[in-house]
Amino acid sequence: MPKRHIYLTDIPLDEARATLQAALQAANAAQPMPAERIPLAQALGRVTAQPVQAIRSSPHFHCAAMDGYALRADSTISARETQPLRLRLGDDAFAVNTGDPLPADTNAVIMIEHVNQDHDDSLLIYAAVSPWQHVRLMGEDIVTTETVLQVNHVLRPVDLGALAGCGHAQVAVRRRPHVRIIPTGGELLPYDQKPGRGQLTEYNSLMLAAQIEQAGGAASIGDIIGDNPAALTAALQSALDAEPQLVLLLSGSSAGAQDFSADAISRLGEVLVHGIAVRPGHPVIIGMAQDLPIIGVPGYPVSAALTGELLILPLIRQWLGLTPPQASQVEAVSTQKIASPLGDDDYVRVALAELDGQLQATPLGRGAGVITSLVRADGLAHIPRFHEGVDRGGKLPVALLRHRQEIQQSLMMMGSHDPMLDLLATHLRLRAGGRLVSVNVGSLGGLLALRRGEAHLAGAHLFDPETGSYNTSFVRRYLREKPVQLVTFAHREQGLMLASGNPLGIQSIGDLRRARYINRQRGAGTRVLLDYLLARQGIDPKEVAGYEHEEHNHLAVAAAVADGIGDCGMGLRGAAEALDLEFVGLVWERFDLAILQRFLETKPMQALLETLRDEAFRDDLGAQSGYRSDETGKLLIR
Amino acid sequence: MPKRHIYLTDIPLDEARATLQAALQAANAAQPMPAERIPLAQALGRVTAQPVQAIRSSPHFHCAAMDGYALRADSTISARETQPLRLRLGDDAFAVNTGDPLPADTNAVIMIEHVNQDHDDSLLIYAAVSPWQHVRLMGEDIVTTETVLQVNHVLRPVDLGALAGCGHAQVAVRRRPHVRIIPTGGELLPYDQKPGRGQLTEYNSLMLAAQIEQAGGAASIGDIIGDNPAALTAALQSALDAEPQLVLLLSGSSAGAQDFSADAISRLGEVLVHGIAVRPGHPVIIGMAQDLPIIGVPGYPVSAALTGELLILPLIRQWLGLTPPQASQVEAVSTQKIASPLGDDDYVRVALAELDGQLQATPLGRGAGVITSLVRADGLAHIPRFHEGVDRGGKLPVALLRHRQEIQQSLMMMGSHDPMLDLLATHLRLRAGGRLVSVNVGSLGGLLALRRGEAHLAGAHLFDPETGSYNTSFVRRYLREKPVQLVTFAHREQGLMLASGNPLGIQSIGDLRRARYINRQRGAGTRVLLDYLLARQGIDPKEVAGYEHEEHNHLAVAAAVADGIGDCGMGLRGAAEALDLEFVGLVWERFDLAILQRFLETKPMQALLETLRDEAFRDDLGAQSGYRSDETGKLLIR
Repeated sequence: MPKRHIYLTDIPLDEARATLQAALQAANAAQPMPAERIPLAQALGRVTAQPVQAIRSSPHFHCAAMDGYALRADSTISARETQPLRLRLGDDAFAVNTGDPLPADTNAVIMIEHVNQDHDDSLLIYAAVSPWQHVRLMGEDIVTTETVLQVNHVLRPVDLGALAGCGHAQVAVRRRPHVRIIPTGGELLPYDQKPGRGQLTEYNSLMLAAQIEQAGGAASIGDIIGDNPAALTAALQSALDAEPQLVLLLSGSSAGAQDFSADAISRLGEVLVHGIAVRPGHPVIIGMAQDLPIIGVPGYPVSAALTGELLILPLIRQWLGLTPPQASQVEAVSTQKIASPLGDDDYVRVALAELDGQLQATPLGRGAGVITSLVRADGLAHIPRFHEGVDRGGKLPVALLRHRQEIQQSLMMMGSHDPMLDLLATHLRLRAGGRLVSVNVGSLGGLLALRRGEAHLAGAHLFDPETGSYNTSFVRRYLREKPVQLVTFAHREQGLMLASGNPLGIQSIGDLRRARYINRQRGAGTRVLLDYLLARQGIDPKEVAGYEHEEHNHLAVAAAVADGIGDCGMGLRGAAEALDLEFVGLVWERFDLAILQRFLETKPMQALLETLRDEAFRDDLGAQSGYRSDETGKLLIR
Repeated sequence: MPKRHIYLTDIPLDEARATLQAALQAANAAQPMPAERIPLAQALGRVTAQPVQAIRSSPHFHCAAMDGYALRADSTISARETQPLRLRLGDDAFAVNTGDPLPADTNAVIMIEHVNQDHDDSLLIYAAVSPWQHVRLMGEDIVTTETVLQVNHVLRPVDLGALAGCGHAQVAVRRRPHVRIIPTGGELLPYDQKPGRGQLTEYNSLMLAAQIEQAGGAASIGDIIGDNPAALTAALQSALDAEPQLVLLLSGSSAGAQDFSADAISRLGEVLVHGIAVRPGHPVIIGMAQDLPIIGVPGYPVSAALTGELLILPLIRQWLGLTPPQASQVEAVSTQKIASPLGDDDYVRVALAELDGQLQATPLGRGAGVITSLVRADGLAHIPRFHEGVDRGGKLPVALLRHRQEIQQSLMMMGSHDPMLDLLATHLRLRAGGRLVSVNVGSLGGLLALRRGEAHLAGAHLFDPETGSYNTSFVRRYLREKPVQLVTFAHREQGLMLASGNPLGIQSIGDLRRARYINRQRGAGTRVLLDYLLARQGIDPKEVAGYEHEEHNHLAVAAAVADGIGDCGMGLRGAAEALDLEFVGLVWERFDLAILQRFLETKPMQALLETLRDEAFRDDLGAQSGYRSDETGKLLIR
């Protein structure tokens, strides 16, 4: 078992960057990469290592700018409308197409429309022609020695064309900075192997290599090194010997694993920083050995990705001679209170919605292990050091991870989660290129989000025992001031999800008294349903063990039952079947979409409604176990 | 010689696109590409061909969320601060690092900080632990069957990580649409061969292939086909037989060359569109053969690039299942009157400057052959059909070709051109990542641009015969209301540029009476200088043949002399030497930068001033033939 350190010495991000830069300067490793000459056909996206001058003018001879006849202007002086001049083809005039060089001793072109070619070997012209008329002069586009491209310029398709046009077949570009990646951790397995219990898939190397490649660097990934200090030191030594620009030591997920990296760096060089006050991601190590920088990257994937963005990519750009990446910064309003540790620069993944021109940011899962929060994120909100966070409604600076236009055209749906909303999103995307973002805050939470203007629509399956109906009375109660159109999404089967084989023989709500239950969060439609069913049977929630254990969606409840954390939970047939659980059906409930009236006529919402009513989608939905689509798309009167 | 058509039937862009779409629909070729499965390591930037569901939960077992000890929560109920509970290591408690799986029969983790490990084989705890405390539950990140990524999604680094994390080693992506490119034109040579007189470098294939590759397609380029109808038809047939998604026939530059393409398409299929009302670029052909689309691309490079943007890239995106590319649209004010043909959608390349939050657009060269206008462009202004253009000060919609932030941080310099401004731009870029944009409107034009607030600074070398000084009196006269700081850029040698060997024996201004002169445009400092020198010698401009022939920069004058269009022109020693001309020096003049006071303290301008005073830059400038840098960077009193 390794030594166990507790790190209390996290330093601010800026200080860490400054330390790294000072070390790079001292090692003479802060400068842009040297040049290599490569053929133009391989140069797209590469960065010029020096300014490029034309080595040939373009065009490099005088040429016709029109289809017609080249001639000598001074030979045409006598031509008049009333007294046309005859020119002999091949002697006085020469047929030319646009782009053809002017024949020797000609200095003008007359357009084909302005001559009368009445003979095979001669033609008539009716007016004098000025010198250089309809001639594209040599060097019109570019003259030899002119600067065509600046240094440190990312080559685009037109640049390649211009370089070829002025005489270059190759271009001097900056060599790609090479990053050697060493994944470490005894519990880790390459992603193309199936992990057993206690084993985890190592994918940070894949993700960081892709980040580096996208930024213009070149990454190579070594074998995973187990928890073996000697092997790690040897791997680090061998990486340094290959003289890359940077070595990354990727830790396993444990805090203890950091020590392996730090110890290996100390053995071969020096640890300069151990711990940066950034969240998520603080156990970052920065070191130098053999005048080469080494970064120890934390094991949690979100921390690893953020370390890439904040520390590694700026280095790649520096070595390419480029200025730091410029994410588009916007200001958004937070839909939730976000608490943030005072000492850290806190980066919060957010979903963004734009309603009436106002960007609304909703924080996604904040765990450093939740890579899907980064996949789903539309932006990264930054809560700087010495800030405690923001209140609901407070302003947040957000770096966009998606085009603003894509966000503007997205539909934000809050409320209850149904796995088939993904199916709807797929059909919408295939049909109209639209994007449906869905944030799970429970049925009631969705209606309240509509009231606050945080979402375009909400998903709800709220049963009202007094009326025996779904959703309508809730909409009436909570959205009196906000006109809403209810549209049916689906009918779906709710019931009890039970461990495989149903060892406790649970058949009904009454049996919950003798089972460990997994509940849904307050405000979830499924919880409302449970409370109704319990009350109808005269069962006090206190009699149900595990009533306090809350999960936030059907699959999470199913997973908890599958894992034996509980014996039983309420949820969808589909979720139970997905995890091979037993299922006892209880009710068919209606899941509706509540759409704010004022967004009903927008193009994205119309595309959504068309998709809902589309036969292909309804067939697809109805074919899913536990779903009926016969009323899908039906407009409901409140 | 081919038949000569005159095309009067250009159709609007929208109509051409609709025709193409209808033909694709009829040929069943409008749908997105089918899938291929590829390893994740190759999938960056590719597009998902179907939604992707998790095939393994992540994490796929319960694991420790903290470094500490795993234990059974119910075994700790009796622990109290005053009555600590002893747990035996290996029986009741198990050391775990973050990420480790919970040992069998444990369901909670106590943090290492909260125990007292007073013995090697046992430890004390001081409080009861709740079930699942500090445990990362199976599926916290993602549960089997959950949708991780939607269809038609461009894969980013984090997406690759998420896919690996939930059990995928491969992903189904859309096959790349394949475009077969056939360059044609008897006058064309591949760009890696040196063209002789009458030969032109073929680079449209290089440029279009790069556009296609950047958009996610795959391009292959065939050999250049000369003006041989049979060979072209055979090449087209062979391209069709390879069953790509699209064939491009690239014409040579002549209007006649279009006919070869149209004839070949007609022979094997059908021409649907011949001529689109877009400027530049209208002789576009759209055809179908063997149910495959063929686009005939005009030969002028700007037309070719624009055909790529407007017609070809939207097809690539359609086949990838993506929505049309969304260039950021901004509104800019035109610094010049722009006339536009009423019948065409006109795309004008513009340089953009942002002053006081207002974007100013200055049109660059409009010729379809001037590829450098596209290289230099910051944006593409669109003047729709049925619009006659805009006046100076009128509003223009502009699609950005550069990040807005890059434009905001650029310095716009108008005025006189000096080739060494590129050297300054290079040093600025290397020193501070800054960008100096220079638009040549002549010395006086630059001062007037400053007065209108169109540029941050201007370059001028205006000699005032009355005072014998440069620039100061002009600044006083034209910029009375706009405080300006003059800074010296360089002293440079002006003189007469003469054909190699100086066959006419020209030695002084007086000799201009017997030479064909190449002049500079009105308002250019060099022209002011000429007029002064002529007046001093008592020579009437009318005595100078070619006085009316105007070129817009030193190199253009030099090129015209080198080409024998004239015998003599006035310009810089450097320009003469670049084109191997003779040079008779006449004066050393001062070239100054006039900087609007209100931009003097901005960061980009400070970086420019620091660069001007930088020793490395001054040495580099002073080493150029015909330049002195001893006063470079000096502030001048008005």
